[in-house]
Amino acid sequence: MTEKPVKSGSTGVREGEIRSQRDPAHENGDAHVVFIGRIRSPWQERSECPKNMRQAREKITGACHLEIDEAWRPGLTGLAAGDYLHILYWMHQARRDIVLQKPRHRETLAGVFSLRSPVRPNPVAMALVRITSIDPATGIIGIDATDALDQTPLVDLKPYLPSIDHPSGG
Amino acid sequence: MTEKPVKSGSTGVREGEIRSQRDPAHENGDAHVVFIGRIRSPWQERSECPKNMRQAREKITGACHLEIDEAWRPGLTGLAAGDYLHILYWMHQARRDIVLQKPRHRETLAGVFSLRSPVRPNPVAMALVRITSIDPATGIIGIDATDALDQTPLVDLKPYLPSIDHPSGG
Repeated sequence: MTEKPVKSGSTGVREGEIRSQRDPAHENGDAHVVFIGRIRSPWQERSECPKNMRQAREKITGACHLEIDEAWRPGLTGLAAGDYLHILYWMHQARRDIVLQKPRHRETLAGVFSLRSPVRPNPVAMALVRITSIDPATGIIGIDATDALDQTPLVDLKPYLPSIDHPSGG
Repeated sequence: MTEKPVKSGSTGVREGEIRSQRDPAHENGDAHVVFIGRIRSPWQERSECPKNMRQAREKITGACHLEIDEAWRPGLTGLAAGDYLHILYWMHQARRDIVLQKPRHRETLAGVFSLRSPVRPNPVAMALVRITSIDPATGIIGIDATDALDQTPLVDLKPYLPSIDHPSGG
């Protein structure tokens, strides 16, 4: 293998982190995603963002919602306030080539697939949220919290199904 | 809105299903994904695939595993047999334009975002699996079951974290 150790002074990475031999940001890709809407949140800068959904629920200071583009609004049929929803979103500011990472709270390097870091080969983040309101006509879905930057693009919404989404199957 | 009702005889859709005014399969896309590996399963045809992970666990007749490409294998550091893992994969055979769908077991049309159907604007599927074995050197990860076709491309692996992945936060 030929991973490249990151040099001190590289932007957006921490000393000792390891780059992959590939950087998807500079490849053509194998398939394409379309953005179906946006997350609206109080967080305008990455430094303001909660580190995860747990912290987001503690820190929440303003309304969060999703805005779904018109072409996809009929797809909201069947969702209701109170439902839990997985949201998939595109971390458009994250680099994609760091395969071994050093989270701030850890001493040792951890593989990207053992972390929920936004930095990953495909920067798709996933969060479980609760719907607080929904209006299919305008495409506005109120949610209880988010750790995402304002205007983060949405890739998918999926219902939470305990039979397949929980280790015990229920 | 200008959704188009599906005509009888269209391929891959059921009578009464509604197409979006957009078809992402024929758009350039807003971002690109790279495939990080493949799912290996006993299912060679879509007709053989279990309908969901619950049925997959009942039906399983052969070994399932993931094959991770060499460039991404260092990213497996920190994962171990017994861990639960979300896998994100690309349903490369699914169409992307059906916004109101009629699942076989339902009487009425349901919005794509209230379903886990492979047919969606971005055909990213998500399943929670248990790691049965892992060898970072070869990139082979044994998993307990899958409902995916053999050779389905992988997009991401994420650790299951009860504090953010379960409605009760634990």
